[in-house]
Amino acid sequence: MSHALSFERWQQVRQRSLAIAAPLSAEDCMAQSMPDASPIKWQLAHTTWFFETFILEQYEKNFQPFEAAFRILFNSYYNGIGEKHPRPQRGLLTRPSLDVVMAYRQNVDERIALSHERHKNDAQFHTLLELGLQHEQQHQELMLTDIKHLLSCNPLYPALYATPATLTSILTAPQAVETLPTLEWQDYEACLFEMGHEGKDFCFDNETPRHRHFVEPFQLSVRLVSNAEYLAFIRDDGYRNPALWLAEGWDWLRSQAIEHPLYWRQDEQQEWHEFTLHGIQKLNPQQAANHLSFYEASAYASWAGARLPTEAEWEYATQLHEQGLPLTQLFDHCWQWTSSSYSPYPGFAAASGAIGEYNGKFMVNQYVLRGSSAFTPAGHSRSSYRNFFPASARWQLTGLRLARSLTDDE
Amino acid sequence: MSHALSFERWQQVRQRSLAIAAPLSAEDCMAQSMPDASPIKWQLAHTTWFFETFILEQYEKNFQPFEAAFRILFNSYYNGIGEKHPRPQRGLLTRPSLDVVMAYRQNVDERIALSHERHKNDAQFHTLLELGLQHEQQHQELMLTDIKHLLSCNPLYPALYATPATLTSILTAPQAVETLPTLEWQDYEACLFEMGHEGKDFCFDNETPRHRHFVEPFQLSVRLVSNAEYLAFIRDDGYRNPALWLAEGWDWLRSQAIEHPLYWRQDEQQEWHEFTLHGIQKLNPQQAANHLSFYEASAYASWAGARLPTEAEWEYATQLHEQGLPLTQLFDHCWQWTSSSYSPYPGFAAASGAIGEYNGKFMVNQYVLRGSSAFTPAGHSRSSYRNFFPASARWQLTGLRLARSLTDDE
Amino acid sequence: MSHALSFERWQQVRQRSLAIAAPLSAEDCMAQSMPDASPIKWQLAHTTWFFETFILEQYEKNFQPFEAAFRILFNSYYNGIGEKHPRPQRGLLTRPSLDVVMAYRQNVDERIALSHERHKNDAQFHTLLELGLQHEQQHQELMLTDIKHLLSCNPLYPALYATPATLTSILTAPQAVETLPTLEWQDYEACLFEMGHEGKDFCFDNETPRHRHFVEPFQLSVRLVSNAEYLAFIRDDGYRNPALWLAEGWDWLRSQAIEHPLYWRQDEQQEWHEFTLHGIQKLNPQQAANHLSFYEASAYASWAGARLPTEAEWEYATQLHEQGLPLTQLFDHCWQWTSSSYSPYPGFAAASGAIGEYNGKFMVNQYVLRGSSAFTPAGHSRSSYRNFFPASARWQLTGLRLARSLTDDE
Amino acid sequence: MSHALSFERWQQVRQRSLAIAAPLSAEDCMAQSMPDASPIKWQLAHTTWFFETFILEQYEKNFQPFEAAFRILFNSYYNGIGEKHPRPQRGLLTRPSLDVVMAYRQNVDERIALSHERHKNDAQFHTLLELGLQHEQQHQELMLTDIKHLLSCNPLYPALYATPATLTSILTAPQAVETLPTLEWQDYEACLFEMGHEGKDFCFDNETPRHRHFVEPFQLSVRLVSNAEYLAFIRDDGYRNPALWLAEGWDWLRSQAIEHPLYWRQDEQQEWHEFTLHGIQKLNPQQAANHLSFYEASAYASWAGARLPTEAEWEYATQLHEQGLPLTQLFDHCWQWTSSSYSPYPGFAAASGAIGEYNGKFMVNQYVLRGSSAFTPAGHSRSSYRNFFPASARWQLTGLRLARSLTDDE
Repeated sequence: MSHALSFERWQQVRQRSLAIAAPLSAEDCMAQSMPDASPIKWQLAHTTWFFETFILEQYEKNFQPFEAAFRILFNSYYNGIGEKHPRPQRGLLTRPSLDVVMAYRQNVDERIALSHERHKNDAQFHTLLELGLQHEQQHQELMLTDIKHLLSCNPLYPALYATPATLTSILTAPQAVETLPTLEWQDYEACLFEMGHEGKDFCFDNETPRHRHFVEPFQLSVRLVSNAEYLAFIRDDGYRNPALWLAEGWDWLRSQAIEHPLYWRQDEQQEWHEFTLHGIQKLNPQQAANHLSFYEASAYASWAGARLPTEAEWEYATQLHEQGLPLTQLFDHCWQWTSSSYSPYPGFAAASGAIGEYNGKFMVNQYVLRGSSAFTPAGHSRSSYRNFFPASARWQLTGLRLARSLTDDE
Repeated sequence: MSHALSFERWQQVRQRSLAIAAPLSAEDCMAQSMPDASPIKWQLAHTTWFFETFILEQYEKNFQPFEAAFRILFNSYYNGIGEKHPRPQRGLLTRPSLDVVMAYRQNVDERIALSHERHKNDAQFHTLLELGLQHEQQHQELMLTDIKHLLSCNPLYPALYATPATLTSILTAPQAVETLPTLEWQDYEACLFEMGHEGKDFCFDNETPRHRHFVEPFQLSVRLVSNAEYLAFIRDDGYRNPALWLAEGWDWLRSQAIEHPLYWRQDEQQEWHEFTLHGIQKLNPQQAANHLSFYEASAYASWAGARLPTEAEWEYATQLHEQGLPLTQLFDHCWQWTSSSYSPYPGFAAASGAIGEYNGKFMVNQYVLRGSSAFTPAGHSRSSYRNFFPASARWQLTGLRLARSLTDDE
Repeated sequence: MSHALSFERWQQVRQRSLAIAAPLSAEDCMAQSMPDASPIKWQLAHTTWFFETFILEQYEKNFQPFEAAFRILFNSYYNGIGEKHPRPQRGLLTRPSLDVVMAYRQNVDERIALSHERHKNDAQFHTLLELGLQHEQQHQELMLTDIKHLLSCNPLYPALYATPATLTSILTAPQAVETLPTLEWQDYEACLFEMGHEGKDFCFDNETPRHRHFVEPFQLSVRLVSNAEYLAFIRDDGYRNPALWLAEGWDWLRSQAIEHPLYWRQDEQQEWHEFTLHGIQKLNPQQAANHLSFYEASAYASWAGARLPTEAEWEYATQLHEQGLPLTQLFDHCWQWTSSSYSPYPGFAAASGAIGEYNGKFMVNQYVLRGSSAFTPAGHSRSSYRNFFPASARWQLTGLRLARSLTDDE
Repeated sequence: MSHALSFERWQQVRQRSLAIAAPLSAEDCMAQSMPDASPIKWQLAHTTWFFETFILEQYEKNFQPFEAAFRILFNSYYNGIGEKHPRPQRGLLTRPSLDVVMAYRQNVDERIALSHERHKNDAQFHTLLELGLQHEQQHQELMLTDIKHLLSCNPLYPALYATPATLTSILTAPQAVETLPTLEWQDYEACLFEMGHEGKDFCFDNETPRHRHFVEPFQLSVRLVSNAEYLAFIRDDGYRNPALWLAEGWDWLRSQAIEHPLYWRQDEQQEWHEFTLHGIQKLNPQQAANHLSFYEASAYASWAGARLPTEAEWEYATQLHEQGLPLTQLFDHCWQWTSSSYSPYPGFAAASGAIGEYNGKFMVNQYVLRGSSAFTPAGHSRSSYRNFFPASARWQLTGLRLARSLTDDE
């Protein structure tokens, strides 16, 4: 592992958070549109707090916090660290100001640089630095989805980026899909295979240990469900037919009067549009259907005579894809709901100490998403990556790929 | 299959519902203590409605309902049948009276007997009759847990049965455990095995299709966690240590100020008691810990340096048990939480029509429980049976067996 | 005061509660349709508890409660007495059974008779006995409105009484109104008058002290607003015009999707009906509009270019009525909302001890209703009587009389 | 009326809003701490919207809105104007930015100046201008209470103003009270007097019409209840004795675990402090008790053997005070809860059109407060002024003056 290179990468990641926040005002960075989302300012501070708390507190001699109160203010959920500012009230923190948070970032960056110099050969230091970097990348995706949600609550529907091009300069741009191929199916035979992270590169603890898993024969659609296809589901009264829905999904839909994906809007001519980071745009029928809840993904699959894949099926197919079996849109378009609830792999053990709270304690009542989205930072995706959200979440970039079971004869 | 015998069994099952309700007043049968629970009267009617709606409507010439309004009143959740009386308002149905519901039961029983006579050789008729019987057995367990919950809400803590003996005459009595054996572990090697229902006997659709599953090496505790052991967890501040809990479980515990299992009470001398169907009883340290939520079961397992088994591990061990590998308390004590969320087996397909709503639509945000409880009717348990409840449910008889992962070397 | 006579009246009132409950099953008596309403069984016990707690506890030598637990179970809201069973859980008290409550009534009646014999000349004993009798009369009205609400929640819409005639035998029957007179106005000049209870007869503490009050000139409608008139308001989009509503009323209406008075139903031919204690009946356009909230009464008055009277105006007009100025439907039809919030009269002082909690502590965020209704027991109304309910309450028999301010010149 | 002078006053009032906002960052101006409070930015825009909508729309030829979307965004509650942005989401409006709102203010100010020039002799124009000015003054008080509430939610407890002196330059400073006089009582004889606004000066419609009202003899405390006195109530377990509380107040207190006035905090030495606009300060025992709900004011009065005054008593005493009968702290300290619910005066009629929604539609379930507070703009108080808030509101500067009823003989 080349440490110097790693540190340069670390600096680039830190820098990218600022680039995401660049077109935002201090006001934009302060607001919290719902308890699930966090203000950009809070995230800029929290990702910094992560380095200060988990690295500098341990590695700096005579450690002095930049500001003692931040230990509580910017703690997200680490009970091992102590008290936390209540999550739904993150949007009330007008102080510290964005300027102070920026100064906090710079201060911690400088101290990390010094520490890095001193602990060049300390493997644990590098492990923590890498974890903080990955953590910040996760927040970069959240910053984009959270700001999108916030702006969507404003009846002026502001465009954060003037054009798709300005947005693209920050994001990993998915390949434009000119003509949508027909929905083909790829078959997979039954197999005992190894899943979970392999190798020395970074992964989160929830991707381990690598273990054996058996899949019965199945098939996957080679591409994601498109807006055009999802529109056909809506027009076929998909949102009004309880037979297609999980019981809990049907209750969710009715109690919230849901009739379409999160950011879709119909204009007076009944034409469909969607809110994006560059404003309201005409719905592109070729693009992957996006901002769907697990309930919606599951109902669509029922309607299409299919089901969601398990995370094992997805990972198995992706391994084969890397060996030449073709699937498209595995990464970079939208996260793909699986039917697998988020649970520990056999033999999973969380790290000791507060850092062990990173993943394990969330393994209940959430569903795994695989792949990555247009908002995922470059280099932050892999076939063993396990994203997870509750079944009702739709403000992430979440869509679906269809699966079907096969019998051995087929 | 001997049809005459089957019909006699059907009559016995129908009769047993009346035996359960026998010590209850019309008032007891009317009340609903929470939306999750249903009044006994409603359940006596609903189990009857099941036969009238799914069998008589189809098989009776010139079908006339006993009472047209019951089609809506006693429909639980079948959208395919049409409208439903709102679940939280089942406890407001003072009319029809218990007498009328009893007359409804008798009327439908007589008509089923006639229909059975006429369709002795109709396989589908027998399949539906068997399904209705199994459905009624499930409700018999719910009737006992629901009435227990209702009576526990009454500060007089009424004893439904004068003595354990009167209760035992109705229930499958678990073997009294005189001295509790120490907690031993049984090892299992990695294996690709077949799970799911096998054979011609009745099973629910969620137990099918039988399919292959691979388990990595693991071990199980040979008996369930006992009250004495659970008490040690409480005394070690188990309910005050967030490091042991799933994040959602910790929120649940705090928002509801939970400090012990559902029916436990401490008297003024700090001695522990529990509410039972024969009144408040001193807590028996030898008995299996009971009325735990998934959150509590999971926190206990963390504290004990173990985890919950997956449903596959449980089923695999039970298959081996039937071949001689000894486990105790697999059945008849309490349902055992697994770490497996309730989801369809590979190749699962629900039946067509309203009857297909029986299981499939509940496969989200619930966890599988295996085994059976002291309240489960005799003959209503098997190694492939999948019970399921949300992670917060505790009014069922739910406890836990511990599991640990092994490496191949161990 | 003839004590023997008073005691006979006391027995008649106690007997009337049983007459009201006579057509009800034990199941009917057990259910609670909403936290505001109480089960009939609970009310039969609570009115008995009132005598046991406030009279027998004090007057009986070696007082022994009928059942110690009842002190808590049947305490409504008297903090001075101690703990209370939570109000929303009154409908879960399947035990004690209705039979036991009936035995409780009989036991307390016998003990009161003995005590009465012994304390014939004790003025305070008679005061408490009278208060308990008036308290029971108030509950008789509540029993009728609560059972009406409960039965209205049952989609079978059961008729409690076979015919209006059977109902009339229990109730004070309002005079049938054959032809509705046109809505005339009666003028009143400005006046300083005395309001509040006068004389030695029983009244509640909230009607005292009698005090001077000045009214500016006003006019009142001589009769109540009728169903026909209220229907005109509905047809003129009264429920869709925010300009007519108090802001809080508009929010109430929208959040609950309210479009008509509580028990009104429109059949498939768009014909209006209302649910009554003798089942669903065609709406009688001549009858006083009923089951209105304060918000609805206020919106109707706005629409009619009028306002609600103050309670002082109502009482002043009623005093003049007794001297010959004619108003109709003052009593026996429905309670009449006034614009006066429920607050203490100048010089008001609550009694000391728990009995002082009877009225005073409810003097906030409630509005005064005057008159009496078809459900009010005979002899339980007077011009100084102050009934009160929150602005959103509609399950009582509540309607309105219009008022308008005049200038001195008019 | 000197129009030129009036316009200068108008400019001063507009300017004062900017002075209040001066020490605030754009972030401070954006956040909304609860649905009852509004962001400062929103208030700066809304007060401007008031002039644009109610004056410029009518008086400007070829009226063009500054920004069409603002008509909805900054409408508070005027249904007559049309749609409104939902109140609880005012804190999500990161756009328009504070800069744009400031430009909006300047633009409207310039257009008002031009219109004023043209309509110098138009009485209705001046009436609307005066109403807008008074409206803005009301918001100036709200801006201060809302920002105080927002900052109190920040665990850093920021000081908005460095010192009391800087605050005083903006506020009407109450006279410092060096030594607290003992609590004396002033007696008032029964009287028929005239209440409501008199004369040609501005008043709100709810202060009219002037009308006769009769008060029975009473007495008032010459000064407000102090912090020292309120502390004695706390120490006497005032918050733990239900006998002192209105039933609804007791429920409020228990459900929210309330134990002291809104901004009081006890440090580790059990010493009492309060949060102020210049940070956390030691509690001054001499100052008037402040930030009390109606429930708390009422409970304190009960404990002190007194009651709250009616608004008529308060206004009557204030009229006599102006004639020499001495009371202190009538104005400038804190608003004083009265026992009078907010309701229309006899003969009250709201203005026609949307402007008529200013007051009348809020006349339900609110209580009248009299006097004025340290945050009330100079010149914005008078003896007939009726402020009003729900019984649970405490983020305003609200305290109490005691009253007692007298009999004629006393």
